[in-house]
Amino acid sequence: MKAYIISIGDELLIGQTINTNASFIAEKLTDININVTKIEVIGDEKSVILEELEHAEKISDIIIMTGGLGPTHDDITLKTIASYFNSELIINQEVLSDIKDFFKRRGRELNKINEDQALVPVIAKPIRNTRGTAPGSWIERDNKIFISMPGVPQEMKGMMEDFVIPKLLEKIESRSKVILKKNLLTTGIPESNLFLALGDLDEILEGAKLAFLPNQFGVKMRITVTSNSQEEAEEKLFSIEQRIRLKVGRFIYDKENESLEEVVARLLMERGLSIATAESCTGGLIASRLTNISGSSKYYQRGFVTYSNGAKVENLKVNEDTIQNFGAVSLEVVRQMAEGVKAVSGTDIGLAVTGILGPSGGTPEKPVGTVYIGLCDEKICTAKRYQFGEDRLLNKDRVSQAALELLRRYLLGISYED
Amino acid sequence: MKAYIISIGDELLIGQTINTNASFIAEKLTDININVTKIEVIGDEKSVILEELEHAEKISDIIIMTGGLGPTHDDITLKTIASYFNSELIINQEVLSDIKDFFKRRGRELNKINEDQALVPVIAKPIRNTRGTAPGSWIERDNKIFISMPGVPQEMKGMMEDFVIPKLLEKIESRSKVILKKNLLTTGIPESNLFLALGDLDEILEGAKLAFLPNQFGVKMRITVTSNSQEEAEEKLFSIEQRIRLKVGRFIYDKENESLEEVVARLLMERGLSIATAESCTGGLIASRLTNISGSSKYYQRGFVTYSNGAKVENLKVNEDTIQNFGAVSLEVVRQMAEGVKAVSGTDIGLAVTGILGPSGGTPEKPVGTVYIGLCDEKICTAKRYQFGEDRLLNKDRVSQAALELLRRYLLGISYED
Repeated sequence: MKAYIISIGDELLIGQTINTNASFIAEKLTDININVTKIEVIGDEKSVILEELEHAEKISDIIIMTGGLGPTHDDITLKTIASYFNSELIINQEVLSDIKDFFKRRGRELNKINEDQALVPVIAKPIRNTRGTAPGSWIERDNKIFISMPGVPQEMKGMMEDFVIPKLLEKIESRSKVILKKNLLTTGIPESNLFLALGDLDEILEGAKLAFLPNQFGVKMRITVTSNSQEEAEEKLFSIEQRIRLKVGRFIYDKENESLEEVVARLLMERGLSIATAESCTGGLIASRLTNISGSSKYYQRGFVTYSNGAKVENLKVNEDTIQNFGAVSLEVVRQMAEGVKAVSGTDIGLAVTGILGPSGGTPEKPVGTVYIGLCDEKICTAKRYQFGEDRLLNKDRVSQAALELLRRYLLGISYED
Repeated sequence: MKAYIISIGDELLIGQTINTNASFIAEKLTDININVTKIEVIGDEKSVILEELEHAEKISDIIIMTGGLGPTHDDITLKTIASYFNSELIINQEVLSDIKDFFKRRGRELNKINEDQALVPVIAKPIRNTRGTAPGSWIERDNKIFISMPGVPQEMKGMMEDFVIPKLLEKIESRSKVILKKNLLTTGIPESNLFLALGDLDEILEGAKLAFLPNQFGVKMRITVTSNSQEEAEEKLFSIEQRIRLKVGRFIYDKENESLEEVVARLLMERGLSIATAESCTGGLIASRLTNISGSSKYYQRGFVTYSNGAKVENLKVNEDTIQNFGAVSLEVVRQMAEGVKAVSGTDIGLAVTGILGPSGGTPEKPVGTVYIGLCDEKICTAKRYQFGEDRLLNKDRVSQAALELLRRYLLGISYED
């Protein structure tokens, strides 16, 4: 089955909103082996939407639209769909009662505009919205499926997970080929070095596909295997993964879409270890990532953002002379920060960072992007120097990633070497 | 001039990468009044790219491609472009020297694959890459402009800003109509309430356009005015903004694409005030946002992530009995946290949050999404209860936004009422 995604909204064409919806939908469809052949972004204009629907219907089996279902005057998708199918819009009582419940739960007053959100084309089966007010629509005609969902990400996601994907799975009766995919997530090694470290790709892949997907957090390697049977595909995937791990294993922090903070959270909980953080340049980002995980209070109880020298001395017991002699951005200071935060917090591990993230503040010896990361436990203190780029916000992401990676390697007993 | 954006990459069609590039490019083009009519996402497949180029050339003046220029085997855009224009690929010496410089700066070894990145189609003017290795291409033929850039966001952005936009501006000789846009950023009020609070839109807009763009940080209102002269357009825009501000002014935190942390950073610096943060549920996110701004050490020196009760008592001097009597998530505790962090840090302002972000931990009296935010200065302490949603990570964004908004209103002396 071929799918075509139509993202509707002027805000997308002028670049004010990033199209995360299309990515989410594409990923979910790919997971169930539906092939996304095109993603189209168009404006809130009736004639263009109609044209696009006609084109999409010709070349695909599933057409998924998002956007333009909101309560205000510039939301025209539903009217346009009704007109495409020559179908009337009527108030759906089930949806209306969902909307009333939603407002009751939030303790808000229902207004006329909110009630109008219960309008659904007669031809459509409404898709219920558990996280907002506008319902989606599921329409089938001549063996084609048309799906319309709101553009608000969490509402669309709820509909995809609760309704669209299960219903599409029902529709997929048989599949001729088995396609398996696996992601190997790496960090701390640039794309081209990774490529070279792998050596002869044909030997590793034996006909399978490998894609490199880099961003500031690292490089994701995606393996795609196509085969005649599930068993054969699984075996192939397993051997490929083994061959890759043999070459670059220590850079791989996980094998699915888990974030690095989820990986270290799991390791910390398994080992029953607690950690405290002391951050200068990252300003709390590492703490924030460590507490993104539900249940984080099991391993994380406190952290310090010590931007000023005074804070480092008072809260972390860093020696004033050390700051004087080596500078606040130094191996010596980061080691004392890690040691200090561990001691004052009474945790098993102390993790600390200090650095110059830019755009200003660099010196010839310590240019912008110079960062020190330190990690201490009961017995050993490690501190390491890193060189990152020039962009402040990308650097924050990179530094937090490097700190969590140091922690991961510590927890697994893997060498800290690049 | 009409523009067509082609985003190339299998990773986009399977949803593993979010298409932030297209948004960035669309925004930059919109800024210089180039109309983006379509954004296409297609896979790394030669025949599909060729087809798309042919189609785009027919209906637009500017065709911008991103992606597929990396150093590995699955990057085929450049070869495909060369074949579309029947042009050879040759090593460009200027680009090669850029690449060598880049590697020298990073202290990395140049390998054969990196050298091949200096290949450029003979017909193209190379676009130099100051942040990476792969150059872009600028090709003109029959009054159409073809631009190809890498898919790595910061590299593409550098090329857009340093080369593509200035060069396109040169190409735009005359414009018949003046189009002005302005964004008014609101937070703390849902889209439909905002819509209702504005009342009769026709009266406010007098023919101009208004779009509502909601996300977890608030609702952006975009005004678009079209006019015959710059002066008339500016006057129109000014009166519309005044009429909107009269109705919903206190929810508007800024009028351009500035983030709320940039707004409060500016206000803090203007007033010469310092702030310290004490965070429970947001785990450092507020500190991280406050330190995203270059120069943040002027107003921010330290912060505490106090997840456990012990940390609240030891680091912030919260009274143990208060926690016992009212619970860690309470008005009383957040007030003491804000007071405490101000006192121990010696700052002008203390800002604190405590709450239940989910998915678990809710009670009938304090369900998931219950959050308290407190702000204290020398004289006054304010604490407020909020009710957010059920999604942990969205809640973190929402809470940090509400805390910064409370701070903004405090700094401007605006009422805290909804």
